[in-house]
Amino acid sequence: MAKTKLRIIPLGGLSEIGKNMMLLECGDDILVIDAGLMFPAEEMLGIDLVIPDISYLVENRHKVRGIVITHGHEDHIGALPYVLPQLKVPIYATKLTLGLIRVKLKEGKALSEAKLKEVSPGEQVTLGKFRFEFFPVCHSIPDAVGLIIHTPAGVVVHSGDFKLDYTPVSGKPTDLSRLAQLGAQGVLLLLSDSTYAELPGYTPSERVVGEVLDHVMADAPGRLIVTTFASLVSRIQQVIDAAAKHGRRVFIIGRSMSDTARMALELGYLHAPDGILGRIDEAKRLPPNKVVFITTGSQGEPTSALVRMANRDHRQVHIQPGDTIVISATPIPGNEGVVNRTVDNLFKQGAQVLYDKVAQVHVHGHGSQEELKLLLNLVKPKFFMPIHGEYRHLSLHAKLAQSMGVPKENIFVLEDGDILEIGPRLARIAGRVSSGNVYVDGLSVGDIGGVVLRNRRMLSKDGIVVAIIAVNRQTGKLVGRPDIVTRGFVDTRKFKDMIEESRDLLARTLDHSGARAVEWSFINAKVRDTLDKFYYERTKRRPMILPFMVKV
Amino acid sequence: MAKTKLRIIPLGGLSEIGKNMMLLECGDDILVIDAGLMFPAEEMLGIDLVIPDISYLVENRHKVRGIVITHGHEDHIGALPYVLPQLKVPIYATKLTLGLIRVKLKEGKALSEAKLKEVSPGEQVTLGKFRFEFFPVCHSIPDAVGLIIHTPAGVVVHSGDFKLDYTPVSGKPTDLSRLAQLGAQGVLLLLSDSTYAELPGYTPSERVVGEVLDHVMADAPGRLIVTTFASLVSRIQQVIDAAAKHGRRVFIIGRSMSDTARMALELGYLHAPDGILGRIDEAKRLPPNKVVFITTGSQGEPTSALVRMANRDHRQVHIQPGDTIVISATPIPGNEGVVNRTVDNLFKQGAQVLYDKVAQVHVHGHGSQEELKLLLNLVKPKFFMPIHGEYRHLSLHAKLAQSMGVPKENIFVLEDGDILEIGPRLARIAGRVSSGNVYVDGLSVGDIGGVVLRNRRMLSKDGIVVAIIAVNRQTGKLVGRPDIVTRGFVDTRKFKDMIEESRDLLARTLDHSGARAVEWSFINAKVRDTLDKFYYERTKRRPMILPFMVKV
Repeated sequence: MAKTKLRIIPLGGLSEIGKNMMLLECGDDILVIDAGLMFPAEEMLGIDLVIPDISYLVENRHKVRGIVITHGHEDHIGALPYVLPQLKVPIYATKLTLGLIRVKLKEGKALSEAKLKEVSPGEQVTLGKFRFEFFPVCHSIPDAVGLIIHTPAGVVVHSGDFKLDYTPVSGKPTDLSRLAQLGAQGVLLLLSDSTYAELPGYTPSERVVGEVLDHVMADAPGRLIVTTFASLVSRIQQVIDAAAKHGRRVFIIGRSMSDTARMALELGYLHAPDGILGRIDEAKRLPPNKVVFITTGSQGEPTSALVRMANRDHRQVHIQPGDTIVISATPIPGNEGVVNRTVDNLFKQGAQVLYDKVAQVHVHGHGSQEELKLLLNLVKPKFFMPIHGEYRHLSLHAKLAQSMGVPKENIFVLEDGDILEIGPRLARIAGRVSSGNVYVDGLSVGDIGGVVLRNRRMLSKDGIVVAIIAVNRQTGKLVGRPDIVTRGFVDTRKFKDMIEESRDLLARTLDHSGARAVEWSFINAKVRDTLDKFYYERTKRRPMILPFMVKV
Repeated sequence: MAKTKLRIIPLGGLSEIGKNMMLLECGDDILVIDAGLMFPAEEMLGIDLVIPDISYLVENRHKVRGIVITHGHEDHIGALPYVLPQLKVPIYATKLTLGLIRVKLKEGKALSEAKLKEVSPGEQVTLGKFRFEFFPVCHSIPDAVGLIIHTPAGVVVHSGDFKLDYTPVSGKPTDLSRLAQLGAQGVLLLLSDSTYAELPGYTPSERVVGEVLDHVMADAPGRLIVTTFASLVSRIQQVIDAAAKHGRRVFIIGRSMSDTARMALELGYLHAPDGILGRIDEAKRLPPNKVVFITTGSQGEPTSALVRMANRDHRQVHIQPGDTIVISATPIPGNEGVVNRTVDNLFKQGAQVLYDKVAQVHVHGHGSQEELKLLLNLVKPKFFMPIHGEYRHLSLHAKLAQSMGVPKENIFVLEDGDILEIGPRLARIAGRVSSGNVYVDGLSVGDIGGVVLRNRRMLSKDGIVVAIIAVNRQTGKLVGRPDIVTRGFVDTRKFKDMIEESRDLLARTLDHSGARAVEWSFINAKVRDTLDKFYYERTKRRPMILPFMVKV
């Protein structure tokens, strides 16, 4: 590989939302960007979380110079506790992002060995053949950045997760001037966030929510309960600001919300007037229209404070008519059902509930089509690669770029593991590396594969039938009637007769097979076939059948 | 109960979308409205479908005069094959609805005994103390109706599933004049569709989609593949109309789509110019820009034609660059994931895909807030009860009514099973009847309850461990080492040592317990505790543990 050839390899976050991770490789140097996790899809039964396959990085460990993190969301930092012990390289990020990484690594018992390097926007860092700097972007967490990476092949711009907000509540607007300047000088490659490539127009400013919160604070006859993402510090700020304006005090409920708020206050990312924040037991002594709770539970998490309140199961806060609840978030895909049920349960208790469908109580953190186009217009990249999205988002983002004059052959829609190789003049997809989903289930990383999941799926559908067959050690003849135990198959009381019948059937079938019954593989197959057929005829269900032979 | 007292009891469709069913009771007469099914929620593992609990109707079978069906969607007719054999009463519906019911009953082997009565809008039918007539409404299926029911207590108006479309493609607009006339005479109770009570404004007319289809037909460089609900006959009509205009031929793919189209053509609900419809093998001989396929798969159903195409698994249609696919539907809640994956897979094959987020290729069939208000304004009911929606929809619809001047105490937000009792002057919630979800799994209706589902859920998370313990019949002592078989718990090759260790541990533990080991309940508990603790420490997983003792 020529010294100036640059390889870009996404290991996660393309074609599938979440577990963002990619690498830039040039000669003997590899720079890793982000190390996120993904929450398991519905069909990944019992899995706790999903991280990227980093076998390519482990094989090339000696080349890896560092991991650069764009912001502190789970889908960008969540895999660090699993990845870091295998790579043992420094992590580069902004101040708040490092604060969140520290919490994450501590939970994962990987903090002690970590080398964490704080980098401010504008500051330049050289790692092997790469020199990078951060530029501030607006996103639904403070201190988010994009990357400008100087490589021997040219300049690469990585948008991070971004929207354009000219009036952000926390932090600075996206630094468009710096990008325009780079664009004028010549950018080799733009990697840009595709999450909302489906949406026409502009994503509204965070301020819009502030105005709505202001009205709600003024109008709500009683207590106000606001839920949002714990990391959405600017939203918390806006709730505090509106509360201050309307003479309400603010009480923060839920561990993750309290932890983040505390850290954000300490690090100077959150500001609260003296005496506005209170301890929850103080709330009872205030008139309802002087109280605001900020709480976890925006995603309908079963153990969160809001869900407990909705289920009349929270020790301190009992929903009462006159309460107004603001769900200042949208459900992450897959969570719609639990969030809807939470809203329903709050309504059932007589509360007023404001959520995204009925009021503008949330704006999201990714740019819509006009913002994506503006970035392309300023950066003017030679090559373009949409990142951070499912395949349709990437495709639509590619089409946007094409509509703006980027030649089709200069646009690369990759999938995880694809290698994009860029020389000074030419770019092409040049093979693949190992990539995919690594499942974390309990303590174990990566042991769960297709067989275990297939079995869980089968068990989840029609349950299991265990058949225990006692066979005489000498004669190989069946002893007594086979025993049958079921779980998750049928109501065993109502189907007692059917189970008994199947035991008789099995006894007859095995008796007929006579002497050959000692051959386990034969019995095994016979038992499976017999029971499968019998139960399917009777119930149209297909439980997993697990025969077991005991020699007596 | 006084003779003129009217009782309204929803058995399904309130608080939870789907399985719509309600009854009106007056003296010795019961009238049933709709008998729908619901598709199982994610947590209902292995369940095929869900129907309402009709034990109240079965107990009062002698009173039930008939079942009136508002339209032919599954959530209004799907429970008929299960309900009808238990009630044996006539079914009243419009022509196309009866056609769909016939298909449904035939599938469920319940057609032969069914008494099906065709009723045209305007025609009056007397059943006991009830006299009802249909009025046409617009919905996403032709021949949908609402109900005007004359009862001894007064007139009840049931909206059916409706939107207001002044330019419908199939059928007539909602008959607002008849409703205004009734409103002027006095309506006791309005029962009205709440599905889209969250949406401000008006739902667009079906014609809007026709215009978009017209543009797409003109612009698409190659073949066009349109998918929609099989029952959305007006959409199929619009595809045929646009195809005719642009000189394309239409090929219908997928069993349910072909069946419905054939019936709709025969009954006169669908019109196709001569020669426009073709057999799929004829499509190959036409230039791509003369071809339109209409296919099933709008919900990402795994065996549907479109999903097979997306997975390169359809025998006759292979997606090629230049193809344009129109997903003319929105995903039903819960189907978002599979629909998105289908769209992604179509993009991966180089097709252009138009779906609800990027083009107006679908409008839905329920009225938005302004339509709901218009109905309330015309009907001017004394009492109001929102129906057809989850609790938040019902609550928001109730608020709409309140904002229009219906007194709060005259509005009733019920849940399934609640009894609304209306006298000439007063209405109140007067107790509950048995209601809830009855699960259909394979051949069996209602045997699956909490225990089976709980077991399936447990099995789906961390699998199962079966421990077989051989005990000497005389001494009660353990014989050999216990055997252990697992499914869905761990990768058995990687965890071989752990499994062996757990066998040893179990042997030691049971040996120590000595003579008491014959007591099965004791061994059972001991084995569960020991293994649960051991496995949780090692893996942080909690498989179901199923001990089994064999006496030898």
